[in-house]
Amino acid sequence: MTMKAFQDYYSENFASCFGCGRLNEHGLHIKSYWDGEESVCRFKPKHYHTGGFPGNVYGGLIASLMDCHGAGTAYAATYLKNGSKTDTDPASRYVTAALHVDYLAPTPMNETLELRGKVKEIRGRKVIVSMTLSVKETVCAKGELVMVRISEESLSE
Amino acid sequence: MTMKAFQDYYSENFASCFGCGRLNEHGLHIKSYWDGEESVCRFKPKHYHTGGFPGNVYGGLIASLMDCHGAGTAYAATYLKNGSKTDTDPASRYVTAALHVDYLAPTPMNETLELRGKVKEIRGRKVIVSMTLSVKETVCAKGELVMVRISEESLSE
Repeated sequence: MTMKAFQDYYSENFASCFGCGRLNEHGLHIKSYWDGEESVCRFKPKHYHTGGFPGNVYGGLIASLMDCHGAGTAYAATYLKNGSKTDTDPASRYVTAALHVDYLAPTPMNETLELRGKVKEIRGRKVIVSMTLSVKETVCAKGELVMVRISEESLSE
Repeated sequence: MTMKAFQDYYSENFASCFGCGRLNEHGLHIKSYWDGEESVCRFKPKHYHTGGFPGNVYGGLIASLMDCHGAGTAYAATYLKNGSKTDTDPASRYVTAALHVDYLAPTPMNETLELRGKVKEIRGRKVIVSMTLSVKETVCAKGELVMVRISEESLSE
């Protein structure tokens, strides 16, 4: 049995995100899971995801992965328990209010990137998620995201 | 005569960035120019650059555009004058040390996004760039970037 990722629970109308939507044919299709208290997402960049220097990963990809993994983590922290849905308000999603990334070291190409998220705070409709992006044992970037819960209804307006 | 963009001056070895490298076949190829004291970049997202909700642009794309336009602005602020190179240290590039994005309003699809950058501070090897991303008259996101100058030599190490 394959474990479902956070993004596999997104409802069909809201599964079109370039970064994490399973229905976006051209997208990155990132997948996030719980690993104890942390959320984890592993992603292997494509050969063309290079930055200014060909041997390093493009900084925009790193921000993009953090954005979508952060949204998934906020969703899972409030709506998923142990890989299955809770029954409270399932028709909600998180959007990013703020994203901060510190680039600490060049991120090498041809490696699997590991993102690890931690829920720092849940306050009302806001979830604060902190994050690292590592290659093997090296933390290449750190991030912090402010996610805000909105109902799917308000997204459709 | 077509005016050259900031990115057209990047040396060949460092023009492979997915966001702004003219030699990346799969990339976004953003182009940045001066408009008085501000740097400007206009970009029309592809149909697949959607966020969780299909009518809005993917937040990761917004962060990516800011990242590359910020790097271009820092480069141009120190090495380009009126669309031509200065002769001081041309073999340097800027990398992103920190990126902060505040998402203020949904960014609609099927529109041209306009990014405007301003150099807030130049201090030693650091350039701080502030930025807006607008659709027509609406500012959809604001950003601030800390860019750090490095020599191409150190990138190759």
